This record gives sequence, structure tokens and C-alpha cells, in this order.
Amino acid sequence: MIYGRNPIMEALKSGREIEKLILIKNGEGSLKKIEGLARARKIPIQYVEKSALDRLAQEENTTVNHQGAAAVVSAYEYCGVEDLFCKARQKGEPPFFIILDGIEDPHNLGAILRSADGAGAHGVIIPKRRNAGLTETVAKSSAGAIEYVPVARVSNLAQTIDKLKEAGLWIGVCDMDGQTYWKADLTGPIAIVIGSEGKGVSRLVRERSDFVVSMPMEGRINSLNASNAAAILLYEINRQRKIKE
Amino acid sequence: MIYGRNPIMEALKSGREIEKLILIKNGEGSLKKIEGLARARKIPIQYVEKSALDRLAQEENTTVNHQGAAAVVSAYEYCGVEDLFCKARQKGEPPFFIILDGIEDPHNLGAILRSADGAGAHGVIIPKRRNAGLTETVAKSSAGAIEYVPVARVSNLAQTIDKLKEAGLWIGVCDMDGQTYWKADLTGPIAIVIGSEGKGVSRLVRERSDFVVSMPMEGRINSLNASNAAAILLYEINRQRKIKE
Repeated sequence: MIYGRNPIMEALKSGREIEKLILIKNGEGSLKKIEGLARARKIPIQYVEKSALDRLAQEENTTVNHQGAAAVVSAYEYCGVEDLFCKARQKGEPPFFIILDGIEDPHNLGAILRSADGAGAHGVIIPKRRNAGLTETVAKSSAGAIEYVPVARVSNLAQTIDKLKEAGLWIGVCDMDGQTYWKADLTGPIAIVIGSEGKGVSRLVRERSDFVVSMPMEGRINSLNASNAAAILLYEINRQRKIKE
Repeated sequence: MIYGRNPIMEALKSGREIEKLILIKNGEGSLKKIEGLARARKIPIQYVEKSALDRLAQEENTTVNHQGAAAVVSAYEYCGVEDLFCKARQKGEPPFFIILDGIEDPHNLGAILRSADGAGAHGVIIPKRRNAGLTETVAKSSAGAIEYVPVARVSNLAQTIDKLKEAGLWIGVCDMDGQTYWKADLTGPIAIVIGSEGKGVSRLVRERSDFVVSMPMEGRINSLNASNAAAILLYEINRQRKIKE
């Protein structure tokens, strides 16, 4: 985290990755400028009472005066979607990406990075909003995979999916009422979308998908933990590709 | 949590499930009695300084004087291993159990219960020591599956495995250097063992297993999150059984 108007202004101008900005409500002067710069860079802004910022700064044991502003900076670097294609080409394999549509739990994101590395996926695509970023908690949960799995963060998931389709990828969405996942052919160039724990895949994303895959639910619960669902699909893609080789 | 000598003595005598007992070091009088009762019931005991108990009671906002003793009680009920066999018989299916050997993270245990429900497993077996119990955190992570998946808690995992083998089950352990999991025949009566995040499956358990299955690890990381590994195996068993039908 960084605190204070000048340090945050510098970070915004330098183009450093910022996960989230925390501002006091109804800030004036340079806080307005910071707000404008953050909006232009599409950085999510959370507005809080001064007391909440005081508490945050205290918990973090910072000696800096927050002056009404704090920023959560990225612990790890993002790459571009083109880097994921590069990795597929380097390995001589059809693209195998995983798209996360609103995974907010950092432990789930970390576990997914770990399974993506294990299953041989070429990278992960996440949206800027409503999704955990590459924080220290994610790094820890990923058991180191965060260093090896390229993660691209995009402003508009629907537009990115359109581009992936133009590049020849099939977009499979994991959701209810689809085809049993292992009956679908998952061996070609593919991006699999995992939706959020609470709401599943967003409408705009589902509309763009080529097919929907589902896990059989034999019991009383109607969905799996997001990282568990991702692991099952990632490894089914790995299994199908191995059989085809 | 319950605090104080009398409430804990009552709980111990009533046979209520107790996850763990927390006692101050070198306790005298009735604390010795509590210690003896807990030992007889094979309840794990943690010895702490008085200051640690004070802090714990304060964090929990209890108004009760702890008198040197606190107990973590179970939020949900355990069943016996025979109840898991019952469920298999009721469904007319060969037994399909999952054994957890040291899953200490309650979120992982909750996610595994959820995937066990989804994949149609007949129940989960956990050891009394070094494994998360059925706490509120587990219940929350299980998204309700805790109400439907029978969980048996046993004192000696190795002995339980011997009994399962006598009953005709095949014991498959998830560990490194085994057969690729989807190449193994997982359609018969089976119990799959998932080891702890840090240490894997314990020696006594691995020695008793009939076979070892492994997930291919295509990247740089050498293991998966325990709940992700469990989900992949649970659903592979489900897939193989469906194909065989």
C-alpha cells in the first residue's frame, strides 16, 4: 500500500500498476486530481470515511500521513494477452487459456494459478474490476505459480473475448445447464471461462461463448468452489490433449 | 468455544464432540482432571501461557472467566464409517470414499465436502489429529454440503484403512511418482487418500495403499492445492463410473 497525495500522484503518473484507490468521501483539491487520473486509467476507486482510512493506516503501521488517500499497488506484474499467445507458440501447442470472470477470493485465484501451471495452460485472463489482483495473498496461495503463469488483466472482458474468437479460439463457459464437460471436445485452441462464486458468468460473456460445459452435480449442492471447478476443467483439457497426441 | 472448568467438565462427561482442548501450562487441581478425561477420549490438547488464553477469551468477547481452560467444540456432527457404507448400499453403488490425511485448512476441507457432494462420493473420513474438524468456517466454505456429506472422524487412520481393505475397498493414494490418475481404473469400491498441503500422505498410510495416482505437473510447481487435487480425482471417479454404466 502507498499513502499520501504526492506518492500516489507519482505512482499514477509513472504508470505503475494500481489495484485499487481508497479515497475519503468528498475530497477536495489534489484529491480531485488524483480521482481524475485514476478514472482515466480505469482504476477502481473506493470511497470511505476518514476514520476508516485512519484505521487502515494504523493497522499497516505506516508513519506517513495518508492525507485522505491510499492505494493498493500490485505485488506482481501483469502481461498482455499477446504474451499468452507467445507462450502457446513457444510450446508448439494450440492456445489454452483460462478466463476468470469475477473471482474475488485471493485464495481461489492463487489455487487456480497453481492448477493452471500444473495442467499446462498458457495463461490466465482477468478483468480489472470485480476480480482479485496479483496480491501477496494470491502469491502465497499460488505456491509460487504466480512467477510462472502469465496473467493478463483487461479492461473489457467482452471485447477481449471477441478478439480471442477472431484469433480462432473456442470460448467455453463453465455454467449450469451445459453439456457434461468431458463430453465436449476440448482439444482445439480454447479459452475456458470460470464465473464468480456468487453470480456465475456475466451475461455479456455468456452471450459471446461458443459452448457451455457443466460438471454433473450428483448431490444436493448446485455448484462447486470456483477453484475446484477450474481445476477439473484444466485437467480435463490436459487429459484430452494427451490422449489425442 | 466454551470456557471455564465446570462447563468443559460437563461437555467432556456428556460425550459432546470436542475438537481441541486449550489448557494453561502446569495447571493444577480440576485442570488435571480435565486433562485426564480429555486424554482418555483422545482429544488433542494444546498447552499455552495464561496470557494467550486471556487474549483468546478477549477476542471472542466472552464474559466468562476461562479459569485456565477453553475448548473448541464441534459445530456439526460426525458419523461412523459404517454410515458411509450404508449410503453406498442405499444408492446401490460400489463404495466411493475420500480419506483426508492432514487437511488443516478449513477452506480446503469445506471445498472438498462440496466437491464430494457434487461428484457423488458416499462420505469423507478424517483423522482426529492434525486435520480441520467440522467448524463454522468449514460449514461456510462447504456452501451447505456439510449438511449432506457424512464425515467420519477416526482415531487411527491406518487401522481404519486396514478395515476398509478387509471390506473389499481399493485404497488409492494421491501422491508424487504414481500412475497418471486417469489411466488407473477407479470404477470399483474405492477410497482415495489426499495428503496434507505441506507433507503429503503419511508413511503409515502410503504403505497400506494399493496404488498411487498422480496428476501430471506440466509447469514448474510440483503439487496442487489439496482441494483442487481432490476435486480432479473425485470427478475422474465420477466420469469413469458414468462411462462404465
